[in-house]
Amino acid sequence: MSHSRVVIVGGGFGGLYAAKRLGGLPLDITLIDRRNFHTFQPLLYQVATAGLSPSDITAALRWILRKQRNTTVLLGDVVTIDASQKQIFLSDGKAISYDTLILATGVTHDYFGNDSWEKPAPGLKTIEDATEIRSRILRAFEAAEHAPDNVENEGWLNFVVVGGGPTGVELAGAMSELARQTMRHDFRGINPAATEISLIEAGPRILQAFPPSLSDQAKKSLRALGVSVLTDTRVTEISNHHVRLSSEKGNETLKTKTVVWAAGVRASPLGRDLAKSLGLECDRSGRIPVEPDLTIAGHPEIFVIGDLASFTHKGGKPLPGVAPVAIQQGRYVAKTIKHRVRTGRQNLRKPFVYINKGELATIGRARAVANFRKLRFGGYPAWLIWLFVHLMYLVEFENRVLVFVQWAWNYVTRNRGARIIAHGWKTDRETQV
Amino acid sequence: MSHSRVVIVGGGFGGLYAAKRLGGLPLDITLIDRRNFHTFQPLLYQVATAGLSPSDITAALRWILRKQRNTTVLLGDVVTIDASQKQIFLSDGKAISYDTLILATGVTHDYFGNDSWEKPAPGLKTIEDATEIRSRILRAFEAAEHAPDNVENEGWLNFVVVGGGPTGVELAGAMSELARQTMRHDFRGINPAATEISLIEAGPRILQAFPPSLSDQAKKSLRALGVSVLTDTRVTEISNHHVRLSSEKGNETLKTKTVVWAAGVRASPLGRDLAKSLGLECDRSGRIPVEPDLTIAGHPEIFVIGDLASFTHKGGKPLPGVAPVAIQQGRYVAKTIKHRVRTGRQNLRKPFVYINKGELATIGRARAVANFRKLRFGGYPAWLIWLFVHLMYLVEFENRVLVFVQWAWNYVTRNRGARIIAHGWKTDRETQV
Repeated sequence: MSHSRVVIVGGGFGGLYAAKRLGGLPLDITLIDRRNFHTFQPLLYQVATAGLSPSDITAALRWILRKQRNTTVLLGDVVTIDASQKQIFLSDGKAISYDTLILATGVTHDYFGNDSWEKPAPGLKTIEDATEIRSRILRAFEAAEHAPDNVENEGWLNFVVVGGGPTGVELAGAMSELARQTMRHDFRGINPAATEISLIEAGPRILQAFPPSLSDQAKKSLRALGVSVLTDTRVTEISNHHVRLSSEKGNETLKTKTVVWAAGVRASPLGRDLAKSLGLECDRSGRIPVEPDLTIAGHPEIFVIGDLASFTHKGGKPLPGVAPVAIQQGRYVAKTIKHRVRTGRQNLRKPFVYINKGELATIGRARAVANFRKLRFGGYPAWLIWLFVHLMYLVEFENRVLVFVQWAWNYVTRNRGARIIAHGWKTDRETQV
Repeated sequence: MSHSRVVIVGGGFGGLYAAKRLGGLPLDITLIDRRNFHTFQPLLYQVATAGLSPSDITAALRWILRKQRNTTVLLGDVVTIDASQKQIFLSDGKAISYDTLILATGVTHDYFGNDSWEKPAPGLKTIEDATEIRSRILRAFEAAEHAPDNVENEGWLNFVVVGGGPTGVELAGAMSELARQTMRHDFRGINPAATEISLIEAGPRILQAFPPSLSDQAKKSLRALGVSVLTDTRVTEISNHHVRLSSEKGNETLKTKTVVWAAGVRASPLGRDLAKSLGLECDRSGRIPVEPDLTIAGHPEIFVIGDLASFTHKGGKPLPGVAPVAIQQGRYVAKTIKHRVRTGRQNLRKPFVYINKGELATIGRARAVANFRKLRFGGYPAWLIWLFVHLMYLVEFENRVLVFVQWAWNYVTRNRGARIIAHGWKTDRETQV
C-alpha cells in the first residue's frame, strides 16, 4: 500500500514542529526548505550583535529529523503550487505531488512600498541578514577608529533601529551593550560609549503587544542603556547617509550609516501567489486567511500555519507572528493529520485554539519585561524567565549547552565572542555577503 | 617625549604574539590586519567540516589587546612598504610611519602556475575559505539526495584532497567522519557511507615532516576511515567536474565536484613586493630570507616573522610554516625590541633559535600521530595530547571552553553542529560566499 504523501514547505517553527509530530505514522513526508537548517529566529538579534554564532541558533534539519524514517528533507526552492493538480514545483523544475500540503513559508520584510530602503536598512529574518548587520555594526566602529575626526560628520557612531516591537527593542538594547560595555576598552581614537542609538516607533508606544505599564518600563530600561526612544515618529526617507524622520514636533534628519529595519513584514511570495491563484483575499500583510482548522477554504488538504496564516479567534484580533503560535499550529495540524490517518475521514476536528502562555521581551543584560495574563513584571526576574524559556526551546540539546556557556561567559566578562566582519577590510558594501 | 613607533602588519600567530609581549613598554604600537580578528589556523579544517564555528576559532584582535594602552589595532590593507622613508601605505591612501616594522603577513595558496585551479579547488587559509569549503561539501550531499540516480555519473559523492601534509590529512579524516558517522542517518535516497575520499600526495609518503613509521601509521588510520591515499601521484588537471592524476601506474580521472587544495603555499604579495624593492632573493615560495636575528639584511628596523620568513639554522633546513615557529619568532622579536628600548642600542642579541617541541597531526576521532624527538607514537594517547595542546593554545579562555564543550559533545554524539550552507538552495557557485 502506498502511503499518503505529506509535503511540508518551510522548516521554521511551524513546519518543523508539524514534521516532528508526524514521525512513526504510515505517511510519506517531505520537508522542503531553501536552507539546510532550522533557524531559532527569536535569537537572531544576538547573532546580529555578535553575542552568539550562527551555528548556536541553527540546527541541520536532516539531523533533527534523522531518526524519522518516514521523513525526507529536501533542500529546494518551491516556486509554484498547483492546487488543482496537487503538485508543487521547485526552481529546478522538479515536480512533487502531495495528498496533504502544509504551507509554512513565513514572512519577509515589508518596506511599505519603499523598496529602495532595503539596501541601507536591512531587516533581520535570516542568518545572512544577521551576519550582514553584524558586519555593518562592527565595520562602523572600525571606520570611526580609522578617521576619528570624521565620526560626527559621517554619523559612523549613530545607529538607528526602525520599529519598536520586540525585535527592535532587543536589537537596540544589545547594540548599546556591545558599544558601551563590550567595546569599552577597544579603541584609541574614539569613545564607543559616545555611540548614539535611536529606536524609532510610528505608534504611541513601544512593545504595543504588552500592557502600557510594561512599555513604559521597557522605555526606561532602554534609556538607562543610552538608547533614544522616539515614539509617534515616522520614517520618511532612508539613504546610505541618513534617515529622515517626521513627528508632531517637526522633521529631523539623523546622520547614520547603520540602519536596521524591524518595522514590518509581508507574507512570502509563494503564499501570496497561492492565495491569488485560489482567489483568496489576503490581509494587508499578504497573509492567507485560514479556516478554524487552519485549512484553506475549499481545500481541506492544504494547511497554512505560522506567520503566513492569518488566523482569528471568533471576535478577536489576528494572532501575532510569533514562535509559540507557529509551534502550536504545527502540532495541531500534525494531530489533525494523525486523526485523518486513523479514522480515514476528512471531517473537522475541534478548531485550533491558541493558548497564549505570555509574552517576553528582553532589553539587555538582566533587563526584560514579562506579561503572563494578570502577572506583569520586569527587571531581573523577567530576564531570568526569558533566559530559561529560550534555552528550553532551543531545539537541540547541544545548542542549549553552547548558548548557555556563551551567555554565562558574556554575562561575567561582558565579552561577545562572535565579532567577525565578513571580508574584513573591504568597505564596498556591494561586495559584502 | 614621543615614543618609538612600532608597526606590526598581520595579526596571525607571529604578529599577535609579538604585540602581546610589547604591552606596557614606552612604545607606540599599531597592529594592522585585513581582518578584525585573529584566526586559529590549525583548526580551520574543523570549520571546513562543520565541527566548529568560525567564532570558535577566532577572537577579535581589539578584544585580545584591549588592555594594552600603547597598542592601536587598525583594520586595513597594507599595499606598499617604502623602506627608505620608513612608511607603509594602506589601500585607502593613508600613510603610516614606523621606526620599527614587523612584517608577519604569512602565505597564501600556491597552484604552481595553474591559477585556474583555484576556483574548482579552493585552499584553506581563511575563515571564508573554510565556510566556502563547508558549503561545498554539504551542498554535494544535498545535490546527491536531490537526484540519487546521477550521483555516480556526476561524482557528487567523490571528494578529493590534494596535498598530504597535516592539513590534507586532517581534512580527509574529518570529511570521512562527517560522511560516515555524522550523516549516517540523514539521507533517504543516498548512502553517505558510500562517499569516496581521495588524498593525493605527489611525494612518496604523507606527513613528510614526520618519521616514516608515523606516516605509515597515519596512512593506516586514514584507510580505516575509508580514505584512499594515493602517494607518488601528481595532479595534472582540475576542473569543475573532475581531477586528472598521473602516476607511475599511468593516468587516471576522478569524477568529482568537490576538491580542496592543501598542496602548496606562496608568500603574500606584500612580502614579495618588499623583497623585490630591496633587491632580496626570495626562496621558491617567495619567502623572504632573514638574518639570524630575523631582520632583513641592511634593515635592522625591519623584522620578518612567521610563514613569510625563510629562516635557516646553520646547516639546517628552512623552518616549516607552522604556528609554533611564528609564535616563538614573535616573542623573540618582542624581546629584541624590548632590549633596544632598554639599552638604546641596535646591536644584535643572540640569534633566534627555534625550539621544536614536537609535531602532532590528527587523523580523526581518537586517532593522531605524535613526534616528540625520540618519542614517537600514535592512536589514542597522541590524540589526547593533540586535544590538550590545541585547547591550551586557543587564545581566549572563552574559546577554550566553547571548543571543549563542542568537542566533547561531538565525541559523544558524533554530531557536528555547524552544518550551515551559505545561501541555501542557490547552486550557482558564483553566487556563493
